[in-house]
Amino acid sequence: MESDRPIIGINLKAYSTAIGMNAVKIAKAAEDVSKAYGCEILLCVMPTDLRMIKASVSSIKIFAQHMDPVEEGAFTGHITPVALKDAGADGVMLNHSEKRLRLDHIDKCVSLAIKYGLKTLICANTPLEVKAVACFDVDMVAVEPPELIGGKVSVSTAKPEIVKSTVKMVREVNRYTKILVGAGIKNNLDVRKSMALGADGVLLASAVAKSQDPRKAIENLIP
Amino acid sequence: MESDRPIIGINLKAYSTAIGMNAVKIAKAAEDVSKAYGCEILLCVMPTDLRMIKASVSSIKIFAQHMDPVEEGAFTGHITPVALKDAGADGVMLNHSEKRLRLDHIDKCVSLAIKYGLKTLICANTPLEVKAVACFDVDMVAVEPPELIGGKVSVSTAKPEIVKSTVKMVREVNRYTKILVGAGIKNNLDVRKSMALGADGVLLASAVAKSQDPRKAIENLIP
Amino acid sequence: MESDRPIIGINLKAYSTAIGMNAVKIAKAAEDVSKAYGCEILLCVMPTDLRMIKASVSSIKIFAQHMDPVEEGAFTGHITPVALKDAGADGVMLNHSEKRLRLDHIDKCVSLAIKYGLKTLICANTPLEVKAVACFDVDMVAVEPPELIGGKVSVSTAKPEIVKSTVKMVREVNRYTKILVGAGIKNNLDVRKSMALGADGVLLASAVAKSQDPRKAIENLIP
Amino acid sequence: MESDRPIIGINLKAYSTAIGMNAVKIAKAAEDVSKAYGCEILLCVMPTDLRMIKASVSSIKIFAQHMDPVEEGAFTGHITPVALKDAGADGVMLNHSEKRLRLDHIDKCVSLAIKYGLKTLICANTPLEVKAVACFDVDMVAVEPPELIGGKVSVSTAKPEIVKSTVKMVREVNRYTKILVGAGIKNNLDVRKSMALGADGVLLASAVAKSQDPRKAIENLIP
Repeated sequence: MESDRPIIGINLKAYSTAIGMNAVKIAKAAEDVSKAYGCEILLCVMPTDLRMIKASVSSIKIFAQHMDPVEEGAFTGHITPVALKDAGADGVMLNHSEKRLRLDHIDKCVSLAIKYGLKTLICANTPLEVKAVACFDVDMVAVEPPELIGGKVSVSTAKPEIVKSTVKMVREVNRYTKILVGAGIKNNLDVRKSMALGADGVLLASAVAKSQDPRKAIENLIP
Repeated sequence: MESDRPIIGINLKAYSTAIGMNAVKIAKAAEDVSKAYGCEILLCVMPTDLRMIKASVSSIKIFAQHMDPVEEGAFTGHITPVALKDAGADGVMLNHSEKRLRLDHIDKCVSLAIKYGLKTLICANTPLEVKAVACFDVDMVAVEPPELIGGKVSVSTAKPEIVKSTVKMVREVNRYTKILVGAGIKNNLDVRKSMALGADGVLLASAVAKSQDPRKAIENLIP
Repeated sequence: MESDRPIIGINLKAYSTAIGMNAVKIAKAAEDVSKAYGCEILLCVMPTDLRMIKASVSSIKIFAQHMDPVEEGAFTGHITPVALKDAGADGVMLNHSEKRLRLDHIDKCVSLAIKYGLKTLICANTPLEVKAVACFDVDMVAVEPPELIGGKVSVSTAKPEIVKSTVKMVREVNRYTKILVGAGIKNNLDVRKSMALGADGVLLASAVAKSQDPRKAIENLIP
Repeated sequence: MESDRPIIGINLKAYSTAIGMNAVKIAKAAEDVSKAYGCEILLCVMPTDLRMIKASVSSIKIFAQHMDPVEEGAFTGHITPVALKDAGADGVMLNHSEKRLRLDHIDKCVSLAIKYGLKTLICANTPLEVKAVACFDVDMVAVEPPELIGGKVSVSTAKPEIVKSTVKMVREVNRYTKILVGAGIKNNLDVRKSMALGADGVLLASAVAKSQDPRKAIENLIP
């Protein structure tokens, strides 16, 4: 990952507007934008769509939205690193505010992800919680104050001190992990502000996943 | 579903031997056997494989191994009926012993499955728990005594009274739901015994999912 | 339990107005009212208050608000039937909408409660879910439509068909279990309506637990 | 807490041998030993016993074994800081291997504990997980490798490198938190070894809670 261009994480969640062929369309738009503007995009998708999306794009990263802390075997209904890898996943997002994990499961998932060559992006609520997850050997962390998720004002505008504080705290325990900023991110002003505050990128969902014109919504994010 | 031929439910769990192209191979073998012998087979697969498997077979039923009790929207990391339907699922298994659900979530999942045209198969431990889930409008129920799962002796041989008791109790509350029997099922003797005890079919996993020769393992089940 | 007088279940939840000595005060008021009017009252209390409350009253039933499905042993942080019995509990409420349980855990908890001589009261959302829990050998069930909990209008007034339907469905599977009605219950009119619809009693919380005058609030419930 | 004498944490779990009057007896024995030998003892007890135990001793610390991340209100079946404080708790143990918590709930519980003047002791599996929880403002942390819990050999003997590594990692993020060592601790040799490796104390359960002679079992721990 290069540091002068933002990492843009797009979480499709379980929006019905971002499932199946719609998800493929969003992925292709993201790939176009990524190539045109030279920024790294990672797309967090549903497991049912992962393989199909991965088959349709090559220059953006495809992440699962969740993984269970088990490797393989008699684990009905679990999402395993073996299955994600087989389906082509580049990485996995963990501990999103809509799918929180036990601390020991975060630890186990990170170890399993490393074993299977999956990148990790771990979300958390507060600077302190992000610091705690940054103690693990994670590739990326994201701070997303829950009260701002899905809101009209981005965290970088509404609470810049949260971003600054997160960057400072994470760097006390981890020099290498990339730091994303989420909640209310909609346009390149939000992205620029986040970068100016020391973040390496952003994480967003509805602005793209619920957009009538996902390509335009993604382009709007490029500084 | 016809009543004189057994329903054979095969749960691939998260076995690494039954993922991706291996899962497709098992699905094709199941389809061959289903056509050759005229019995109904349903295959419970990982969400990452669902779409690909569904695209490769047509005469067997493809089920998800789990679903979350939410429809669509801001539910990162959840498996929704909308996503399952889009990927081609015919139905969903719920409350397997490795993925137990809250009672209210079983209720909600069954309602959502009906709304989206997904068949339901609900597992439970004991005759009494199977009776409780049979109160809902489910297509199939399965009794699987946990102490016999993965064991050498089938429930129909080791504890025939559990099968009889399940059939009796379920019929007190639900005339129509099909009743499957699981735990230790390996061959057509186990299947015949289950049917003789009043069951409509069987549910099994490792005998097929971990087999070197899945086609033969499935054929062995046909009475 | 006699059938012509209502069973009045009072859940103190975790209200700070109904903890410690306040809880004892409510228990004594409940006992006074119970004696004066000849109706059965059961009080669902926090585990930290159970022993103290039980030591201060004798003619009302003291229930725990929850139990874990384990008997005793290496289960740090669990509430066991052995501990509840030792503290004097008469019974345990299970599956309240604020503490939902897995179906198999409801089954296990009911078995353990019976083993240790604890009465059981199982809550559920809908008539169908109440029917499902009534399949187990429970002493009491309660239907509490979540949309009406804490509201201004009682379920018996707002949705009498839910009460009727619950009574009908429960009786299909269990002749003996008592049927309570909850959500929005505040006064003797609500209680009378519930009884007229076929219920054996009511379950309520805030009308007593948050009252300035709990004795009066309880008296107001007596038909 | 003084640093030259070990802190001895005793977790009574849900052992039937350590409930009710037995728990009081253990608490009194712990107090005797604490006074006689000048070491700090903290006892982690069931919520049903908390108030009674607290009323019977004064010079040892009484901790709850768990707390839920909610303050007070409509939270049926939850253990709140308000209830724990009212019952006399000095502190709360969190995230024990038998009652793991989500990361965000650990954060929330620590904040609530501080607000209500409850000390905190947070357990974790591995040095890295202990480092993560030490990012929060906790009074004590404990490392307990699950594979050694309840075993015959103490962690300080079997895996001294785990203790050393925990001390080193915790000190990178938190200068003040006390560090306890758990799993297989039985006697003063185990305690001395733990202290020599840099720990401030130990955490144990069965050696006392299941002992025929708890006083002797506690005395055996004193270096």
